[in-house]
Amino acid sequence: MGRATDRRKVLRVDAAAKTAVRRPDTLSAEEPLEIRVGPGGPAPRRPLAVTMRTPGDDLDLALGFLLTEGVIRDAEDVVTAQLCAGTDTPNTYNVVDVVLAEGVPPPDTDPARSFYTTSSCGVCGKASIDAIRTRSRWTLDSDPVTVDAETLTALPERLRAAQRAFARTGGLHAAGLFTAQGEPVVVREDVGRHNAVDKVVGWAAREQRLPLTGHVLLVSGRASFELTQKAWMAGIPVLAAVSAPSTLAADLAEEAGMTLVGFLRGDTMNVYTGEHRIALG
Amino acid sequence: MGRATDRRKVLRVDAAAKTAVRRPDTLSAEEPLEIRVGPGGPAPRRPLAVTMRTPGDDLDLALGFLLTEGVIRDAEDVVTAQLCAGTDTPNTYNVVDVVLAEGVPPPDTDPARSFYTTSSCGVCGKASIDAIRTRSRWTLDSDPVTVDAETLTALPERLRAAQRAFARTGGLHAAGLFTAQGEPVVVREDVGRHNAVDKVVGWAAREQRLPLTGHVLLVSGRASFELTQKAWMAGIPVLAAVSAPSTLAADLAEEAGMTLVGFLRGDTMNVYTGEHRIALG
Repeated sequence: MGRATDRRKVLRVDAAAKTAVRRPDTLSAEEPLEIRVGPGGPAPRRPLAVTMRTPGDDLDLALGFLLTEGVIRDAEDVVTAQLCAGTDTPNTYNVVDVVLAEGVPPPDTDPARSFYTTSSCGVCGKASIDAIRTRSRWTLDSDPVTVDAETLTALPERLRAAQRAFARTGGLHAAGLFTAQGEPVVVREDVGRHNAVDKVVGWAAREQRLPLTGHVLLVSGRASFELTQKAWMAGIPVLAAVSAPSTLAADLAEEAGMTLVGFLRGDTMNVYTGEHRIALG
Repeated sequence: MGRATDRRKVLRVDAAAKTAVRRPDTLSAEEPLEIRVGPGGPAPRRPLAVTMRTPGDDLDLALGFLLTEGVIRDAEDVVTAQLCAGTDTPNTYNVVDVVLAEGVPPPDTDPARSFYTTSSCGVCGKASIDAIRTRSRWTLDSDPVTVDAETLTALPERLRAAQRAFARTGGLHAAGLFTAQGEPVVVREDVGRHNAVDKVVGWAAREQRLPLTGHVLLVSGRASFELTQKAWMAGIPVLAAVSAPSTLAADLAEEAGMTLVGFLRGDTMNVYTGEHRIALG
């Protein structure tokens, strides 16, 4: 399996001092992961998606992807998931083969149709939101959790503290799951922020912790429609982002009954939806 | 057509001061855009992709996407591209219908096969790089351009100055095309950084400026494999990023003969590949 980081030589240039020094640098690894899915048996599973990801926690990534895309409902829907050999020499293990349990319908891989039923898709924003609302198993409205604003403001530093690779490469997004009291539950990193969230959700599915009632998900970047959808599919009532949300993320959070917090920096934050869950203490 | 930004109400919370003020906030718009492509005639074009994007420059986005994915070679390969009605009321114009010129093969939309021939795909890194090398029309090795390091360090501020929406929302990625002397040619913004680059490349294709010999592309975030590929497909010899590149981005840039600069901040930068194009002046 690939590593989360790798070394490359780099020329460090200072334009003002007119100096250039050659030195090694640590970069975040990025490699494709193909997710194949289908029923068991001799016939090969069909490729469903390829995502560019940082190697590590690949089975959780596949599980989380399938769950947040609505292909599976929980970990019980999967019989086996294993890393397979790719075509590289040496073997890079960049394929996950997922065997679905009997009775679980394999996903539609015809893009002409699947565009309208998967994730960050749909022809219009409203249709997308409708499609996802009918697919999520969880009603977040009924989650009574409240979170102290002071607890939220402490989370970005805890996320950074939990990141192992970030300090070395500066190139990884992070997603952290916290309790309402601010205790870290699991933190995952990836070059793709959607992958970081899928790794968190896949871990939770494998630990049979879904829905993630009463939890807070913090993402290191922006809050997009896609990340909001993934949080909803995992039953997470509070999504917080260090940077800005998009319009469609705010609209989806509103529909979901989710609390959406953006610009969580220093002592302050913007609460876009579900403000009843934020307590000033 | 949708707007690039929209207003939402927000609760601005200060956890230390224990205050909460309700006020309007400007968010970056995010809406899906479906790209349909195929030959002319009465039969409807087939959906090829849906991307979550900030509305605006949608025809350039579609053109740039098709070009950087290798579906078309230049703007001549497209007979018409027009925004069509989506299914929303009021009409959101979130579909671009692209009619290919006679003789241009429509893309393979079977994911089982197309996974191996499109963009950020391929089962292993090496296979991906090979697939793209054979698809790009441009050999960057032969581009003799050099850029002063001091010219590069001035670009991030010029990119920010050219961004209109960023200051209001804090939520948009930017891609800027510059001459080797640091003059801005075109700047585009989007919630998706790959979209910002596609909008730049689509504009250049429409202006018949490909390949973009002697130009510098600056991106506001990280340099991923996907962005490096798009730069190569447009014939851009120098790609600079404000933040970190990934391993696969550096490997692809090396293969392409592209100069890859990362961490372009203040007076300094890291040059990962093609250092012969960076002059200390």
